[in-house]
Amino acid sequence: MAYLNENYFKLKAGYLFPEIARRVATFTSDNKEAAARLIRCGIGDVTEALPAAARTAMKAAVDELGDRTTFRGYGPEQGYSFLREALANEVYAPLGCDIAHDEIFISDGSKCDTGNILDIFGPKNRIAITDPVYPVYVDTNVMCGHTGEADDTGSYGGLVYLPCLPSNGFVPALPLEKVDLIYLCYPNNPTGATATYEQLSAWVHFARENQAIILFDAAYEAYITEPGVPRSIFEIEGARDCAIEFRSFSKHGGFTGVRCAYTVVPKDLMASSADGKRHRVHPLWSRRQSTKFNGVSYPVQRAAQALFSPEGKKEVADLITHYLGNATLLREACLAVDLQVFGGVNAPYIWVKCPDGVKSWDMFDRFLHEANVVITPGAGFGAAGEGYFRISAFNSRANAEETARRIRSMKW
Amino acid sequence: MAYLNENYFKLKAGYLFPEIARRVATFTSDNKEAAARLIRCGIGDVTEALPAAARTAMKAAVDELGDRTTFRGYGPEQGYSFLREALANEVYAPLGCDIAHDEIFISDGSKCDTGNILDIFGPKNRIAITDPVYPVYVDTNVMCGHTGEADDTGSYGGLVYLPCLPSNGFVPALPLEKVDLIYLCYPNNPTGATATYEQLSAWVHFARENQAIILFDAAYEAYITEPGVPRSIFEIEGARDCAIEFRSFSKHGGFTGVRCAYTVVPKDLMASSADGKRHRVHPLWSRRQSTKFNGVSYPVQRAAQALFSPEGKKEVADLITHYLGNATLLREACLAVDLQVFGGVNAPYIWVKCPDGVKSWDMFDRFLHEANVVITPGAGFGAAGEGYFRISAFNSRANAEETARRIRSMKW
Repeated sequence: MAYLNENYFKLKAGYLFPEIARRVATFTSDNKEAAARLIRCGIGDVTEALPAAARTAMKAAVDELGDRTTFRGYGPEQGYSFLREALANEVYAPLGCDIAHDEIFISDGSKCDTGNILDIFGPKNRIAITDPVYPVYVDTNVMCGHTGEADDTGSYGGLVYLPCLPSNGFVPALPLEKVDLIYLCYPNNPTGATATYEQLSAWVHFARENQAIILFDAAYEAYITEPGVPRSIFEIEGARDCAIEFRSFSKHGGFTGVRCAYTVVPKDLMASSADGKRHRVHPLWSRRQSTKFNGVSYPVQRAAQALFSPEGKKEVADLITHYLGNATLLREACLAVDLQVFGGVNAPYIWVKCPDGVKSWDMFDRFLHEANVVITPGAGFGAAGEGYFRISAFNSRANAEETARRIRSMKW
Repeated sequence: MAYLNENYFKLKAGYLFPEIARRVATFTSDNKEAAARLIRCGIGDVTEALPAAARTAMKAAVDELGDRTTFRGYGPEQGYSFLREALANEVYAPLGCDIAHDEIFISDGSKCDTGNILDIFGPKNRIAITDPVYPVYVDTNVMCGHTGEADDTGSYGGLVYLPCLPSNGFVPALPLEKVDLIYLCYPNNPTGATATYEQLSAWVHFARENQAIILFDAAYEAYITEPGVPRSIFEIEGARDCAIEFRSFSKHGGFTGVRCAYTVVPKDLMASSADGKRHRVHPLWSRRQSTKFNGVSYPVQRAAQALFSPEGKKEVADLITHYLGNATLLREACLAVDLQVFGGVNAPYIWVKCPDGVKSWDMFDRFLHEANVVITPGAGFGAAGEGYFRISAFNSRANAEETARRIRSMKW
């Protein structure tokens, strides 16, 4: 008799974004006029054209596949050297981070990697997760049995939640109890907050003291506009001993539909077996990828490489400027109606406090019905997200302007 | 203190193909002349140009991404309807299989899917694996703790091995003990064998009787040339209740570097929770994919769809004819030197018995040193593969002809 993984039964009704899609579909099928007016600021999905540099490189790579003398079949499961070296040289070297190309693993998405990384860690780890948080961190821990059941607020037993609130600038205090794996994401999704060098240094110090590992999601690094904000956990001294970093081209080069990301596992990073012996983590992740992954599509890796050409860099910068311009418009609209607003400066997300007493899914429904705008309810990101909502700046300028107008004209 | 998944320490020294790559690299770095003569018939990687239909569609999709009005970001995690529907209509309907488009999940590789599928099954399952077998099935079960340690032959405690030998035509007898998940692959990798309707029907009957699930890998279906050979497990009555099928464009359309595959999970398929209750498997796989995967690159999905256009079908047929032509040459060469040969008729692999008493890694080294040809040692596929080797027909015609010549001129 085949048995299921019963941890799946602990999962709440739907992964956040499918649940949003369901509500939107129900609303728009009942209301064609509103459907035509609908503006999506929910899921953080890019909207603008893929950079020409990436398209040209991708098409050239497709042409290479059309000639048997330049054809490429299976690539290295860890990614092609041309891309790993580009990242070491163009991303990490300029930050002064000592990251070798073979510490960089190319994948088809940070969502996949942040889930799959749990494959190489054992069941005994105590997991610390910021709250609110990108739901994938929580759900993948539920799926592999690191949690108990969820309570009414959606919080799971067994996880150590680290509340992120205005009072701590959305950077959590160090936990009082011991934890083993710690998820941090800065610039933060969903709050748009950043962490300072001092704050990250404190976390690195804590991780080293406790032989814990920080799983650092830097997917939104490209949106940092202010000086003095760390762009990588590896800018922090000692992080090579205690951190894995996840990055993606999704929000950097508009690759959400193209699929390419990367994960850095330093060779210095160690973790324990049950007998307390220390082992390198790098060979386990490499083995995991060799066995359960077959590398990223060759034309896609060429497209990613092209983002570091002079033309590519210019186009990426233009994309970021565009989305951050939207963020400014949306921030200002929320401020104009006296909402309390966070983020949107070094991140493509605006995190907004609901008017007193309003719940975040109710706010979602109000935005959908009154303004025909899709936002993301804060509660979907965790219990501490209740009473907040997220607006995504990924949109056309016209849609951002229209959304800003509708926010100003809603009844507050 | 972060803890590792110690199951990884049970894995043997290297996943088969990296180990082959290591030996080849050592040999060729010592011997430049032989390196220049080297012919690779080891890993089953395609060599011929990607079909023009796929390239044209892929480039057109890249162009779509270059215009914001036709841009696509995140696609459905389960795949675009255009491709799921093409597969239901072009692959399953002609076989008389009742498979709905939303039972077909698009992914970036069957290797990934056959590993990832274990995510949704619990730790209590008893696993049956043919021997020899594609190593990924074994290694992914080791990684998630379904096995004990390996013995000297590389067999893991806790797995139920089903020996596949000439005496049973490489289709295993039904197990005498109860098993819960059963891996079958036909046309078979590595033996090139096929199973008959009667044989698969017996397995489906067994699975239904035991509420077991068959994980059926049909990655080589396109190579079936003989009439009366089943192309899908779903051609067998009752299979919708007890089987998941994995398929890929890798060997079908030459997509090993492009990355696209699909997995069929029928909505009728049920499995148990520990309390004996029965649950549908489909929602769990859908949830797994929604949470841990972000869909296949849009241009790649368009390329896959194009393989079902009239031009695409013609090009795929030509590719298969080409590789099977190589298989014939290689088969005949082995037969000419009085080796015992299997496969190569409905599959791109030839499975050859080593001369009496010769071990398969020794045969690998002999081929490498004497003929400068890379083959795959049978023992890399499991204990029952000892004393055999696999030759891949994925090559240029010139290389296949030269390999055939070298086989004839080796000392046997």
